[in-house]
Amino acid sequence: MKNDLQNITNLLRHDILTSTTAAGSGHPSSSSSAVELMTVLWFDGYLHTDFKDPKYIFNDRIIFSKGHAAPLLYSLYHAAGQISHDELLTLRRFDSVLEGHPTPRFKFIDVATGSLGQGLSAGLGMAMGIKYQMRNEKLEIRNFREPVVWVLLGDSEIAEGQVWEAMELASHYKVNNLVGILDVNRLGQRGETMLGWDLDTYKKRVESFGWNTVVIENGNSLKDVQVAFEAINRQLTTDNRQPTMIIAKTQKGAGIKGIADKDGWHGKPLPKEMLDEALKELGNVDTSTSFSVAKPEKINVILRSETTKDPVEGNEILRFAQNDKVATREAYGEALKAIADNPYVVVLDAETSNSTFAEKFKKEFPDRFFEMYIAEQNMISVALGMSKVGLIPYSSTFAAFLSRAYDQIRMAQYSEGNVKIAGSHAGVSIGSDGSSQMALEDLAMMRAILNGVVLYPSDAVSTFKLIEEMKKHNGVSYIRLTREKTPVLYKENESFPIGGSKVLRSSDQDKAVVIAAGITLHEALKAYDELKTKGTNIAVIDAYSVKPIDVDTIVKYAKKTGHVIVVEDHYPDGGLGDAVLKVIQKIPNIKFAHLAVNKIPRSGTPQELLSWEGIDAAAIMKAIM
Amino acid sequence: MKNDLQNITNLLRHDILTSTTAAGSGHPSSSSSAVELMTVLWFDGYLHTDFKDPKYIFNDRIIFSKGHAAPLLYSLYHAAGQISHDELLTLRRFDSVLEGHPTPRFKFIDVATGSLGQGLSAGLGMAMGIKYQMRNEKLEIRNFREPVVWVLLGDSEIAEGQVWEAMELASHYKVNNLVGILDVNRLGQRGETMLGWDLDTYKKRVESFGWNTVVIENGNSLKDVQVAFEAINRQLTTDNRQPTMIIAKTQKGAGIKGIADKDGWHGKPLPKEMLDEALKELGNVDTSTSFSVAKPEKINVILRSETTKDPVEGNEILRFAQNDKVATREAYGEALKAIADNPYVVVLDAETSNSTFAEKFKKEFPDRFFEMYIAEQNMISVALGMSKVGLIPYSSTFAAFLSRAYDQIRMAQYSEGNVKIAGSHAGVSIGSDGSSQMALEDLAMMRAILNGVVLYPSDAVSTFKLIEEMKKHNGVSYIRLTREKTPVLYKENESFPIGGSKVLRSSDQDKAVVIAAGITLHEALKAYDELKTKGTNIAVIDAYSVKPIDVDTIVKYAKKTGHVIVVEDHYPDGGLGDAVLKVIQKIPNIKFAHLAVNKIPRSGTPQELLSWEGIDAAAIMKAIM
Repeated sequence: MKNDLQNITNLLRHDILTSTTAAGSGHPSSSSSAVELMTVLWFDGYLHTDFKDPKYIFNDRIIFSKGHAAPLLYSLYHAAGQISHDELLTLRRFDSVLEGHPTPRFKFIDVATGSLGQGLSAGLGMAMGIKYQMRNEKLEIRNFREPVVWVLLGDSEIAEGQVWEAMELASHYKVNNLVGILDVNRLGQRGETMLGWDLDTYKKRVESFGWNTVVIENGNSLKDVQVAFEAINRQLTTDNRQPTMIIAKTQKGAGIKGIADKDGWHGKPLPKEMLDEALKELGNVDTSTSFSVAKPEKINVILRSETTKDPVEGNEILRFAQNDKVATREAYGEALKAIADNPYVVVLDAETSNSTFAEKFKKEFPDRFFEMYIAEQNMISVALGMSKVGLIPYSSTFAAFLSRAYDQIRMAQYSEGNVKIAGSHAGVSIGSDGSSQMALEDLAMMRAILNGVVLYPSDAVSTFKLIEEMKKHNGVSYIRLTREKTPVLYKENESFPIGGSKVLRSSDQDKAVVIAAGITLHEALKAYDELKTKGTNIAVIDAYSVKPIDVDTIVKYAKKTGHVIVVEDHYPDGGLGDAVLKVIQKIPNIKFAHLAVNKIPRSGTPQELLSWEGIDAAAIMKAIM
Repeated sequence: MKNDLQNITNLLRHDILTSTTAAGSGHPSSSSSAVELMTVLWFDGYLHTDFKDPKYIFNDRIIFSKGHAAPLLYSLYHAAGQISHDELLTLRRFDSVLEGHPTPRFKFIDVATGSLGQGLSAGLGMAMGIKYQMRNEKLEIRNFREPVVWVLLGDSEIAEGQVWEAMELASHYKVNNLVGILDVNRLGQRGETMLGWDLDTYKKRVESFGWNTVVIENGNSLKDVQVAFEAINRQLTTDNRQPTMIIAKTQKGAGIKGIADKDGWHGKPLPKEMLDEALKELGNVDTSTSFSVAKPEKINVILRSETTKDPVEGNEILRFAQNDKVATREAYGEALKAIADNPYVVVLDAETSNSTFAEKFKKEFPDRFFEMYIAEQNMISVALGMSKVGLIPYSSTFAAFLSRAYDQIRMAQYSEGNVKIAGSHAGVSIGSDGSSQMALEDLAMMRAILNGVVLYPSDAVSTFKLIEEMKKHNGVSYIRLTREKTPVLYKENESFPIGGSKVLRSSDQDKAVVIAAGITLHEALKAYDELKTKGTNIAVIDAYSVKPIDVDTIVKYAKKTGHVIVVEDHYPDGGLGDAVLKVIQKIPNIKFAHLAVNKIPRSGTPQELLSWEGIDAAAIMKAIM
């Protein structure tokens, strides 16, 4: 590398300032503090990436966890000759892929950032995924440079607990190809951070979490930064077994006249006169020059496709006979084993694998199971990262605790991640553990994800099949699982496409149609039986696909019966009832009843609770009569 | 204190075992590890509490953050003579207040636990709140023992990032009346924790976060525990300025034959034969004896009520003139100042106060403003804790980032907390910052909270009034705020009760009613004006109370016009559209249209985005025509 680094820093600052002033918004001060750190990383031979093949699995990865430093990120791509200065000046415009915070609409971006504190976890997932892929491709035995995942972090976002979740797990799993770069510019959005420039305390905290540290006393000095990266490079190429954090003291707005180390300049572009002054200070800059970045060794990775079935030895899959009683969570574990013939399927769980039955997979495929401990936020972001390097991760915990990772799920969508989530122990039917363990908002939460898929099977066979359907689907999908054992309803050859439903009972004399899923479907079937003895017929639909919902079938039966009853083990807002109501609202003269959890639940037996909440067979019969 | 501690430990283990076996579920092994720690805390003079007055503000507080150790907690109340052995044996029954995980249905419980990693934050909020109340009551000058908040933590839950958020903030604010008790029993639900019995690493991590530590090498030895508590007591009564963490090595299932330190016994009661064996080992136990607990000094706290208006000097409240353009987030800041005459109102913000305008309050009342830094989970749980010692906390950040605290919001409801939450920068109308900063799921998320209140004002006056309404409401409430400036619509004397709405436009010739809130209400008003010039009349309703929604008014106008259009800056599922649909579904022959955010958004100007998503005035007119 023979790049003129000083020249590059001037270009980057010029680009940051001109693009943000042109946009009329953006974060030049947060971008400027990291200019030297990024200049050395990118243009002094440390970052290895092939811009022509940005999705090449063995590229190094760069994540700006401090997503508001996007102007710096785009300026780096400009300096590397990947976008023109004109394109750079489209920053934040509707017709531009250079958004206010990075998203994969810009082809070089792997994960969307901007909700702080998530980037290190996503990077951890990529780093773990890259290691997995290397193992898969048997690259460890060659003299192949292990790709590094570099994550730029702001000091404000270190306050997010998720960062420490990523830290503890990265050291626990010795993920030594992960390097964090902590840009300690001291100033947050509205003033000083908790630790200011107290590098010692940062160092102590980071080291206590099992990381190597490299402290840079002046992160805006190219020379200091170069010395540090040399040290890191030595660490990366020796038998170091820990992740590394660079802790760099910087100035917010460094190198920019009028704003350096000044409070009150967060998220503000320079006004015209200040911009002119600042640019004058930077001297002549040639925006048409570009600079070289190191390339990775390219190997022909022929990723083994799904069709390459590895023999899965000793992996006996349970068969489900009709009327056997099997909890859907148990079928989840079985299904994971069944899809293990795809070598990219991996499983994560938040210290609940003996409850979610993810342990069934773990026992057969210990190398492909990742214990994530009780840290749901990190689990989801790690899964996202893994999916961005070609893996197909399933993540499980109690559905109630997925509420902890809602921001991460939201961001996974903007990252175009392929994330499959399983939530067990949904609803009041878990019984005696009480309200804290009962997911009663999860359908609402997951339905609100615009392109999310929400599945809620009622028996083992449909669970089994839906886990396969999730594998085929690319995006964010969720499956809701039940604690209680329920009878097997379906034959093994039935199919359960996303967006479908099953009509379980129907006749020409149906007085109403009951639409349910999960535990309440079985209550609906009980109601059917009892009503039948009294001479009343109803239709019963298994709405296993809550989103997208099976519009045609529901409309058909609503019209046919004129009376729709939805019953669900979920709070009344945002669940299956709302999904059905949307579908039937255009049909004239439909009677609609919605049975849901309308009282704060408590400990009790499943049947006591279903009855108390009015979502059991008796309540369904009452609604029909 | 002259309690026979050894005797108490036997009684507690007896109680834990008998109650869980009677219940047929529960966590005896997780309860047993902490028996000696709790015996010394409760019965050797450290915990000061008046059981006759459990809500006395200057009681010590005890939180079982490891809520699954509830059998131990209830056994302690039995040992202290507060419940009978018969009542203890109702554990987990539907008719019992002794739930599987603690909830305030049991009168001694302040906050519900069971979603791990939240208790330390709630305790921090209580400890900060108690300090606030002491300052308010001018108790610092007296020789009054400062109440201590004791939090029992499991070692598994330490993996939750929120614990470290609480740690960093507690040391930052020198909350020295907070003591954590870390029960390092090594075994999580499904095996060993990341750190096992590595007390040194725990100590390093905790100390690096600025806490004092006291390590107990054998936390199941009464003597060792007593020595440690003596040390803590010295720290608490000297001029120590830091919180303290006890780090105790214990055995899961300690003292119980057959399960001590054995994996595979998480959440499992002893079967009958093992129970008999274990009880025999414990020897004779008298379940009718009770033991004494230290009492706090009782002072007559006459809490100053809302009616005691303190003069709020130098606090000029902005007045809003109609058609002035004021962002609702700015009105939020003004409103906080206006309700400051209630001395229990405090304000928390997650490092965004210059965007949420919470800084307006901060500037006037710095002692009542708490900077929570970028750690939303901790912020909400701290607010919960504060509310449990009599404060009225408002917490704000970008609405998008509240998704990070959904589990904490969910638990605040079960804790019967009085938590007011403000989310700014909602919707695509924030413009160029892009999707990561746009709350588009928040209405769904907050509506799903069973008893939650969800408000969404459109102008400064209604925001101002709704902040006052939130103050009067006791529970979890949420207000959604807009980034953009919008014209003032209302006169200052108008009232905005929760559950109400405002009919802004109506006539006898209305072709449709448009129901909107926030930014889209202004688009509806624009559509009204344009349509009027074309000779078409519509009604326009401001649905500022999204939950509860104003059923009567909406039904009335739906019937009157026969055509309802809901337009909202939110994803289609779970928001205002679903709320309205529920209300009108029983009315025959209503045409319904729902305009919402149906495409993944991006950076752009507010108007570009409103137009692209089809939620602007043009889209409304199209829907009507």
